[in-house]
Amino acid sequence: MSIPTVNPTPTSITAAFDLPKPPGVSWRVRSQQVVDYEVSMTRGLLSTSNSTFAHACGADGKRRTRCLVVVDDAVEQLYGERLRAYFSAWRIAHNWRVVPGDENTKQLDTALGLVDDMSSMGILRRAEKIVAIGGGVVLDVVGMTASLYRRGIPYIRVPTTLIGQVDAGIGVKTGINHGQHKNRLGTYCAPETALIDPEFLRTVDRRHINNGLAEIIKMALIKDSQLFDLLEATVASIDPETLADCGPAGGEILSRSIAGMLDELEPNLWEKVLERAVDYGHTFSPSLELRADPPLLHGEAVAVDMAICVALARNRGLLSEQDADRALTLMNAAGLPLTHPVFTAELLERALEDAVKHRDGYQRMPLTAGIGSAVFVNDITADELRAALSFVAHRDHRAADSDVLESAR
Amino acid sequence: MSIPTVNPTPTSITAAFDLPKPPGVSWRVRSQQVVDYEVSMTRGLLSTSNSTFAHACGADGKRRTRCLVVVDDAVEQLYGERLRAYFSAWRIAHNWRVVPGDENTKQLDTALGLVDDMSSMGILRRAEKIVAIGGGVVLDVVGMTASLYRRGIPYIRVPTTLIGQVDAGIGVKTGINHGQHKNRLGTYCAPETALIDPEFLRTVDRRHINNGLAEIIKMALIKDSQLFDLLEATVASIDPETLADCGPAGGEILSRSIAGMLDELEPNLWEKVLERAVDYGHTFSPSLELRADPPLLHGEAVAVDMAICVALARNRGLLSEQDADRALTLMNAAGLPLTHPVFTAELLERALEDAVKHRDGYQRMPLTAGIGSAVFVNDITADELRAALSFVAHRDHRAADSDVLESAR
Ligand SMILES: NC(=O)c1ccc[n+]([C@@H]2O[C@H](COP(=O)([O-])OP(=O)(O)OC[C@H]3O[C@@H](n4cnc5c(N)ncnc54)[C@H](O)[C@@H]3O)[C@@H](O)[C@H]2O)c1
Ligand SMILES: NC(=O)c1ccc[n+]([C@@H]2O[C@H](COP(=O)([O-])OP(=O)(O)OC[C@H]3O[C@@H](n4cnc5c(N)ncnc54)[C@H](O)[C@@H]3O)[C@@H](O)[C@H]2O)c1
Ligand SMILES: [Zn+2]
Ligand SMILES: [Zn+2]
Repeated sequence: MSIPTVNPTPTSITAAFDLPKPPGVSWRVRSQQVVDYEVSMTRGLLSTSNSTFAHACGADGKRRTRCLVVVDDAVEQLYGERLRAYFSAWRIAHNWRVVPGDENTKQLDTALGLVDDMSSMGILRRAEKIVAIGGGVVLDVVGMTASLYRRGIPYIRVPTTLIGQVDAGIGVKTGINHGQHKNRLGTYCAPETALIDPEFLRTVDRRHINNGLAEIIKMALIKDSQLFDLLEATVASIDPETLADCGPAGGEILSRSIAGMLDELEPNLWEKVLERAVDYGHTFSPSLELRADPPLLHGEAVAVDMAICVALARNRGLLSEQDADRALTLMNAAGLPLTHPVFTAELLERALEDAVKHRDGYQRMPLTAGIGSAVFVNDITADELRAALSFVAHRDHRAADSDVLESAR
Repeated sequence: MSIPTVNPTPTSITAAFDLPKPPGVSWRVRSQQVVDYEVSMTRGLLSTSNSTFAHACGADGKRRTRCLVVVDDAVEQLYGERLRAYFSAWRIAHNWRVVPGDENTKQLDTALGLVDDMSSMGILRRAEKIVAIGGGVVLDVVGMTASLYRRGIPYIRVPTTLIGQVDAGIGVKTGINHGQHKNRLGTYCAPETALIDPEFLRTVDRRHINNGLAEIIKMALIKDSQLFDLLEATVASIDPETLADCGPAGGEILSRSIAGMLDELEPNLWEKVLERAVDYGHTFSPSLELRADPPLLHGEAVAVDMAICVALARNRGLLSEQDADRALTLMNAAGLPLTHPVFTAELLERALEDAVKHRDGYQRMPLTAGIGSAVFVNDITADELRAALSFVAHRDHRAADSDVLESAR
């Protein structure tokens, strides 16, 4: 019921017969939107005997069902045949659109192409679904389109990269790039369900695995010291195979990351609170991602950003010398860069200014306070940025020297 | 807290050390988004001594405040000076964008232009607002852009047309047209506040007043028989002046319409329920709006649609002969068309098919069950459409004849 704040009457309709001069009459509209979705880690998703995926698509194998399936081009190459066989077996009509898993795909043009697909298949507004299968790029642009088409139709997510499985695929954010700005346009729109099959990771190349490891290390640093210990102990053996096999370490690494991420996201799905621990490593990295040439992957830029944050925390006494060293060593061991020539003190300052705009006027910068816990600061100075930069550079240099030493031995 | 459905542990993090084969492990993410906004009918909105508008813009007259103000071109012509004087008095910086109040404005290009405005002014994500002042066109496109920019920044609505004040300006829907489709893309995104000053209606031309009356008559037909009686009694004197003066009848007509609309919208803000009484007159009208040449206004198309619905209800015995006549007479007296040459039985059938898609597979067609109450039907046949069409045509013909008679007298 709308609540009139002036002239309440017994009925829900407030008639103001003779409106007073200001403030007049006003109504308050209050409501709550319930969001409720499932993130499932499951195996054998494409085995025709497994109904999980079909059910998510609204199919029961008896009635013919239609979906618009939007697939990453690499996934189509590697899994297209199995996907098609699965959809046939479950009588899901193939409206099939392949898009390149490439940051350039995350554009308005792609979204409009998908809109035309939806229009021309005359997709039903609630009963037929959009299925996005791929990395973060595909998930983001498909999610954005699904949320805008006729003000929103249901979609499901099947993330196939490590970043997709522990991050892009499991939250409610969608987005596209616009102009020089990453994710300039987007929505908060939960999928109906997200289905995670680690098996997809078997074909992800090493660099993209490391890319995802950056986000996993982030989660460990801000929230989960046990995950950090596990990563430290097993990092040398983490690879596409061990993750896809989902053995004891691989399975725990994935599930802890996912659980930790959901635990951070759930109370703050719409980012009402702008102090977000998951923004760790995401303060300077957007500027780096834009400028690095050859381009960096998202997780690589995040790693370079996290290295600065580790140094900032160490210099403020928030992280011990030893823990700072463990953090940087783990990132290094995960094949991630710690420095980048584009990162100058000036760039860091400007990047921080941009982040301040995104965070509504404050730095709200997450830093580790010991491994596995985060605090927010608003008073990082230019001097501190310079000091952090030179600390990391120096350490990276030493590390490089000792590599040389080692190979000379 | 995310709720693991398998392997719950005392902590909120569920570690699946050894994942079972399907179904694996899953988490449920649950949350509620609270929507809470105010719709105020107020007078003297642009008088510098009235703080209402300034406060909505986040200004207090002391600190300098910035907003992006997007204004309908007709409003800028008529009220630009007073608006600027108001903003100056309250120290609100003028980032000022004028857009044509024309359906062609409701396009992606306009939205992207606004995105560039926001980017180049570096608008803060939460503290600085977008202010939309104009008819439904301006409100829709600005709302859509505000909801997408960085996944949403706050906006306020100042509707200046009658449709804006009783409909487009007070709900949570935003949208743009795309391809041949009206409102093909859009979002549900509540404004922070909607400020309605009937004074703006003084300059709205007669045709656009009648356009708004169509939506008001709709509200009366489906929900509020008292409003219907009031309209019947006063329709001859409703014009821009009487509405702007906001005297007893004008004030009650506006406030009853707004209250009725909010009462319908509030329990169903996200249109989870597709049986919407406010869709009355909106089943066939979209097709008519697309095809009429010279173009019809939205409310005019709604009136032609409502006439069909009145006939459908009469033919089903849902509306008495006399009430059907009262309804059509009122629409006529409000200067609204009841028929249109584009409306053929074939078009009505196709329009209904389109509506069925938008309503997820069912007609869900609201019809009046007596004046002031609505029911939903799913079984309208082609024959009924034909009969309704010829009933209205016949009656319109008779009405035209009696006009001729009258002028001959
Ligand atoms: N919405 C969010 O919350 C969120 C969170 C993090 C990142 N993101 C976005 O995600 C994007 C990055 O995602 P990404 O790292 O997955 O990149 P991506 O989508 O570009 O995928 C990386 C590469 O892997 C390929 N690929 C996908 N699945 C594969 C498989 N199973 N085997 C082999 N190759 C495969 C793709 O074709 C692509 O070449 C960025 O645009 C980022 O902004 C979004
Ligand atoms: N979001 C919703 O819930 C919703 C609901 C109903 C309609 N709509 C949309 O609203 C649009 C129609 O709105 P509209 O009827 O206001 O049309 P409009 O915005 O085109 O305005 C009509 C005309 O009036 C002019 N104008 C505006 N204010 C004026 C004033 N005070 N004095 C003189 N002229 C003035 C405009 O410049 C324009 O020429 C459609 O696009 C429709 O889809 C949206
Ligand atoms: Zn990230
Ligand atoms: Zn309407």
